[in-house]
Amino acid sequence: MSTLSADRSYAEELDAADPLAAFRDRFVRDDPSLIYLDGNSLGPLPRATQARIAEVVGQEWGAGLVRSWSRWIELPGQVGDFVGEHLIGAAPGQVVVCDSTTVNLYKLACAALDARPGRNVIVTDDDNFPTDRYVLEGIAAQLGAELRMIRSDLDQGLADDVLRAALDEQTALVSLSHVAYRSGALADMAEMTGIIHEAGALALWDLCHSVGAVPVELDAAGTDLAVGCTYKYLNAGPGAPAFLYVRRELQERLRQPVWGWFGQRGQFEMGQGYDPAPGTGRFLTGTPDVIGTVAVQEGARLLAEAGIGRLRAKAVTLTGYLIALADAWLTPHGVELASPRRDARRGAHVTLAHPRAWQISQALIREGVIGDYRTPDRLRLGPAPLYTSFADVWDALDILRHIMADKTYEDLPVARSTVT
Amino acid sequence: MSTLSADRSYAEELDAADPLAAFRDRFVRDDPSLIYLDGNSLGPLPRATQARIAEVVGQEWGAGLVRSWSRWIELPGQVGDFVGEHLIGAAPGQVVVCDSTTVNLYKLACAALDARPGRNVIVTDDDNFPTDRYVLEGIAAQLGAELRMIRSDLDQGLADDVLRAALDEQTALVSLSHVAYRSGALADMAEMTGIIHEAGALALWDLCHSVGAVPVELDAAGTDLAVGCTYKYLNAGPGAPAFLYVRRELQERLRQPVWGWFGQRGQFEMGQGYDPAPGTGRFLTGTPDVIGTVAVQEGARLLAEAGIGRLRAKAVTLTGYLIALADAWLTPHGVELASPRRDARRGAHVTLAHPRAWQISQALIREGVIGDYRTPDRLRLGPAPLYTSFADVWDALDILRHIMADKTYEDLPVARSTVT
Repeated sequence: MSTLSADRSYAEELDAADPLAAFRDRFVRDDPSLIYLDGNSLGPLPRATQARIAEVVGQEWGAGLVRSWSRWIELPGQVGDFVGEHLIGAAPGQVVVCDSTTVNLYKLACAALDARPGRNVIVTDDDNFPTDRYVLEGIAAQLGAELRMIRSDLDQGLADDVLRAALDEQTALVSLSHVAYRSGALADMAEMTGIIHEAGALALWDLCHSVGAVPVELDAAGTDLAVGCTYKYLNAGPGAPAFLYVRRELQERLRQPVWGWFGQRGQFEMGQGYDPAPGTGRFLTGTPDVIGTVAVQEGARLLAEAGIGRLRAKAVTLTGYLIALADAWLTPHGVELASPRRDARRGAHVTLAHPRAWQISQALIREGVIGDYRTPDRLRLGPAPLYTSFADVWDALDILRHIMADKTYEDLPVARSTVT
Repeated sequence: MSTLSADRSYAEELDAADPLAAFRDRFVRDDPSLIYLDGNSLGPLPRATQARIAEVVGQEWGAGLVRSWSRWIELPGQVGDFVGEHLIGAAPGQVVVCDSTTVNLYKLACAALDARPGRNVIVTDDDNFPTDRYVLEGIAAQLGAELRMIRSDLDQGLADDVLRAALDEQTALVSLSHVAYRSGALADMAEMTGIIHEAGALALWDLCHSVGAVPVELDAAGTDLAVGCTYKYLNAGPGAPAFLYVRRELQERLRQPVWGWFGQRGQFEMGQGYDPAPGTGRFLTGTPDVIGTVAVQEGARLLAEAGIGRLRAKAVTLTGYLIALADAWLTPHGVELASPRRDARRGAHVTLAHPRAWQISQALIREGVIGDYRTPDRLRLGPAPLYTSFADVWDALDILRHIMADKTYEDLPVARSTVT
């Protein structure tokens, strides 16, 4: 690396050999000089999605009016099946697109607790994404369960033995993130699901930071439940609906608590008494967000076309390259790697630690590089493999090393000033 | 009426005098010959909304990327306040746009039950919208409460004395619809809220079939909680997010069960332990649907420009005219009015009853008139006041009387064949 890192031509060679390079042009790029390393927070706009939204709004809603519901009503399951097949290793009939990740977590975690009578403990880790921790805390408060919060390593993720030691015959549910939102640590889903099942508990995985960037094999891992968002690597837009997965054998046994008319068998009979639809239909609640769901469909199609295997291979190379440049250029300035160094344990983003991380993140934005800050002192850089070039990574790190060398961040506010 | 009903020129005169007539051109009209009387199910596409969605997608998401969250994050409260001020009589800081009606009903009903310890009964009526009944049934099952289902008149709505007789010192919550989805019966919100409060219970109103067409005065009525959808009279599109209202004095005391990161105080500190945001923020859950929320904003702006007073006046005249034509033309064919005849007790749609209602609704569609069927034998016609002309009503009823006279519906399937 030592000879390569100093030379941008190496990045250009990697780009020339990149089988996914052409996908960059499938996205709207308003400012070609902008380096966007925050697709792990909000993915950019695919051109196909822009066109499809215009069509759904103008034609399906504008011209079709209420008649279009005959096709819209199939979308949650159709798009869910597509995501299942191409992105998360789920056979048809187990995934639906609906609600937000938060609401889906709530529904599935309540259902899991209900399905394990006599067990009263929910286990999660203290580095799980905030909404996951809060939802589980809320369920514990509402239903009189116990939330057992185990310790995760802020850089390396949750260790198997820490998980194993936390489980017992009281454990009903374990809820974990596949890729940690802060460090990017990638859990071994099959291994951990096995540990969870040994204890007789159900496993609920949050795929928000892995779906679309890391191969996910829900069926093969034997997992029970999963949720994930679509506005990160799926590029479905701000607040697009999330998805949920329920393993087929569990579907008829699980009872989620939000009984809405879209979960009712024979919905338009509008009868007395809730009778949950067969299959995944019972996990739907209210009227689905049609525009958001078609954006999920377009985003998933683009990822499927690229292929999750090629995406993963590129993500490993991109993040490895980023780490090598950081080692060479940033370590002298007190910047430390805060993500797993082993490829097999790392998702598609890299996190760096420095006491001035907030200021550095703002200095980067000023120079046209968008990453993001995470508490307490972390800078996240997400070179999403579908549209990020190796030259982007070289340029971003080059800008960053100059920011560090010249301390150009020092004139910026030392901390975030607003809630955003 | 007898002299007027036979003559289309009377409808044309009413249109010429209609102060809202020009709003018709503010909507996309793909097929000018189509008569759309189903805006009470899915409102049509406002031109401004089509343009705004394109702008939000292309500019705010496409060009602005993650940076746009600094403005998007304010949308749920901003748009909620606008809806509150212009459409539902709520002072600022009491309304937020989020989730679906179903999910909002769940959150608020759980919170109400939690706020009335020692009381264990939820009351609703058997003609409430299906999702309302199912949600309350689900809460009762989940939390061990009792759901008391009272009898509503299918044509006239819920009677005060039936409500009063159902309440006692065990009643925690009463959940009712302001306008009945099937008959269009309009409840006296202030009167009924008073009855509910006399019993010491909280009142939760569903505004789905009234907001945007009927004046709603939540603060003045002294109501506690409300929810409503935005894809009917608000014209915000299929699956656009709903809204919720919590009376200011209750906000700090209420604890809703879905604890998500958008409800957390200091959301981006991402700290340990859920600490609900002050005010209405605590009733948010996950990441809001940005595109849907701006569509709500545009839809509400259009209604505010028209003015809810003018909309109500026109709705009363339109539905009264429709009823007069039905009396004159359809009664001889066995069609009966299944909505309140008194203007003050009727929302903005009219329901007719006939044993062949399903076939008739399909025959109407074949002739270019879209209304809808509701079980068991109802035909709903919704002349939404913002864009429906009196000539639309005349033409639709004229087509309908010929369908009835010639029984042209007889070749159509006798019942709905699919779930849609």
